[in-house]
Amino acid sequence: MKFDLLKTDAATQARAGVVHTDHGAIETPIFMPVGTLGTVKGVHQRELKEEVNPDIILANTYHLYLRPGTDILEKAGGLHQFMNWDRPILTDSGGYQVYSLSANRKIKEEGVKFKSHIDGSYHFFTPERAMDIQRSIGADIIMAFDECTPYPCEYNYARRSMHMTHRWLKRCIEHFNNTPDRYGFKQTLFPIIQGSTYKDLRVQSAEFVANCDLPANAIGGLSVGEPAEEMYAMTEVVTAVLPNEKPRYLMGVGTPINLLENVALGVDMFDCVMPTRNGRNGMIFTANGSINIKNKKWEADFSPLDDAGYAWVDTEYSKSYVRHLFTVNEMLGRQICTIHNLAFYLWLMREARKHILAGDFATWKEKMVKQMDNRL
Amino acid sequence: MKFDLLKTDAATQARAGVVHTDHGAIETPIFMPVGTLGTVKGVHQRELKEEVNPDIILANTYHLYLRPGTDILEKAGGLHQFMNWDRPILTDSGGYQVYSLSANRKIKEEGVKFKSHIDGSYHFFTPERAMDIQRSIGADIIMAFDECTPYPCEYNYARRSMHMTHRWLKRCIEHFNNTPDRYGFKQTLFPIIQGSTYKDLRVQSAEFVANCDLPANAIGGLSVGEPAEEMYAMTEVVTAVLPNEKPRYLMGVGTPINLLENVALGVDMFDCVMPTRNGRNGMIFTANGSINIKNKKWEADFSPLDDAGYAWVDTEYSKSYVRHLFTVNEMLGRQICTIHNLAFYLWLMREARKHILAGDFATWKEKMVKQMDNRL
Repeated sequence: MKFDLLKTDAATQARAGVVHTDHGAIETPIFMPVGTLGTVKGVHQRELKEEVNPDIILANTYHLYLRPGTDILEKAGGLHQFMNWDRPILTDSGGYQVYSLSANRKIKEEGVKFKSHIDGSYHFFTPERAMDIQRSIGADIIMAFDECTPYPCEYNYARRSMHMTHRWLKRCIEHFNNTPDRYGFKQTLFPIIQGSTYKDLRVQSAEFVANCDLPANAIGGLSVGEPAEEMYAMTEVVTAVLPNEKPRYLMGVGTPINLLENVALGVDMFDCVMPTRNGRNGMIFTANGSINIKNKKWEADFSPLDDAGYAWVDTEYSKSYVRHLFTVNEMLGRQICTIHNLAFYLWLMREARKHILAGDFATWKEKMVKQMDNRL
Repeated sequence: MKFDLLKTDAATQARAGVVHTDHGAIETPIFMPVGTLGTVKGVHQRELKEEVNPDIILANTYHLYLRPGTDILEKAGGLHQFMNWDRPILTDSGGYQVYSLSANRKIKEEGVKFKSHIDGSYHFFTPERAMDIQRSIGADIIMAFDECTPYPCEYNYARRSMHMTHRWLKRCIEHFNNTPDRYGFKQTLFPIIQGSTYKDLRVQSAEFVANCDLPANAIGGLSVGEPAEEMYAMTEVVTAVLPNEKPRYLMGVGTPINLLENVALGVDMFDCVMPTRNGRNGMIFTANGSINIKNKKWEADFSPLDDAGYAWVDTEYSKSYVRHLFTVNEMLGRQICTIHNLAFYLWLMREARKHILAGDFATWKEKMVKQMDNRL
């Protein structure tokens, strides 16, 4: 994997670049749509390419490990073949599930025992196992196995957990380096910085991770309920430590405003379930603020869903029609709002990139943040 | 509305024709996808046109009357505008709900009182009201208000009900003729033949309906649980009475085999929820029989969903992948199987038409009926 840093903004830390992978180039800043189980919910692969056009998507190791399982994925020739997606795929490591499934897992130095939410069966994830599974899935980008701490998190817990994540990272690197790429393309390991919302821990973790000298660096453990200002503060201390010449991935973030603020702090890659999950709940993001399409006020509004037209759905369907679909619980409503939100997120990142390259990112960002901070 | 009967098969009663409407031509035999609430579940309007390509779709009066209601539909300029569909639309009259919502309705000579399944509110449908609502919805083809009797149905009940349906038809015709077309295009009323599974009643009803001399004739009250042989027998006695120069619509039918058998008996138009509903349950129809894609046997079958390729989904996704989507309850699975089934149904009708025009329908039909009668 190779990263070309094309430009860094003069007024902010925002960067425009290109990540090169064996499945094609990723223009940054980028938002990666989440396809947990090998499908971006409600969106055909063809639509995703043609209407949303992301250079990369994300899938979830823990979920794919449970179903369909690595046996089927290996027989298929990897996830790209299985789901018919020929662009890059990043898989999380299962580390996020250490946080999100906290009632159903037990953490030890050796690894994490999960109780399946499907059938109650037990599964033991170690750093080594997380590498093996991600290689089997066939991810272009493999994430290190970490503990994502909750918010708030007591200082001593955060410190101990961070050190364990660092030890796990060493094990990930060693195992990753001792195992071959699968399916004939290059797989790349990304390390993850932890440290909760403590600046000293974040600096310490960023230094540890940077010293591992992997091709990119990721920031985990944010977007778990902390105020946005704390998230930005953590991003800021971390990006100050990280090398410029490697891409930075902020995991699990966030709203359109969160994205722009973090781009301004030097983040290159994002993922989040928000555009897809909120879309399925009838919440759409626009350049002028967010809309709850279920509200009565849209009942007789026959104007296009979004006349900016990020995807064809925006002008194909009216607000009134989409509201009706949600009122009667028709799946087409969820499909429409998902495509709209993803297309908007990807448009926002492409616009950010253009403005970084044009040199007017800071003023554009301020304007957009103000505009988007409305409920329509 | 005008019907051109292009050819009647020599060996069977099968016919190829064209129905002309202000929203375009309908080549018959035709299958009409069901879009109950102004959406064919899980399918974008654009996909429906490009991948399934039906000349006409169906929507449900009772459901649209409850939500979004005629007020919204009128403000939108009718259902075509509301849902962004520029080809013909046929609406049922609510008569089917007299059957399907039997626990929540009361029939009188004047009309039917329904208790809403949404909020328990009461709504009174009369033949006149059914005409008004369908005109407001903006259907190209409006169905008469009838009582669809259940199966089995006691003879005397079926006879009395049939006579009431006939009196209602007279009221429908009178009210329809006394009210103007809406939205600037021609609306056409179709009468409905009843009579349960009794040949004498079916003949009587067909004669009554034929004498009303409307532009087409519909056969109702079938596909309500009776054996296929009884359905075919009723179709046969009815089509023998009906004039050749008008299209015949068999309501609510059916499986791919049912369609071909009824085409052979002289039916031109069909609708049914089967391809969409069964698709959402993971059951797909193919030229070689039906498939339950949820079965374990497809787990590692990486061949295309259907290599015949009726729609792009057939070759885009493997059986294994679609099975996975159903196993994990992902909506994309429902979307894929719905498009496949509809594309297959429409292909089947287009093939039937080709073979009728080519003169070898009977042999083709026999072959297809045999082939499709498998569980794969």
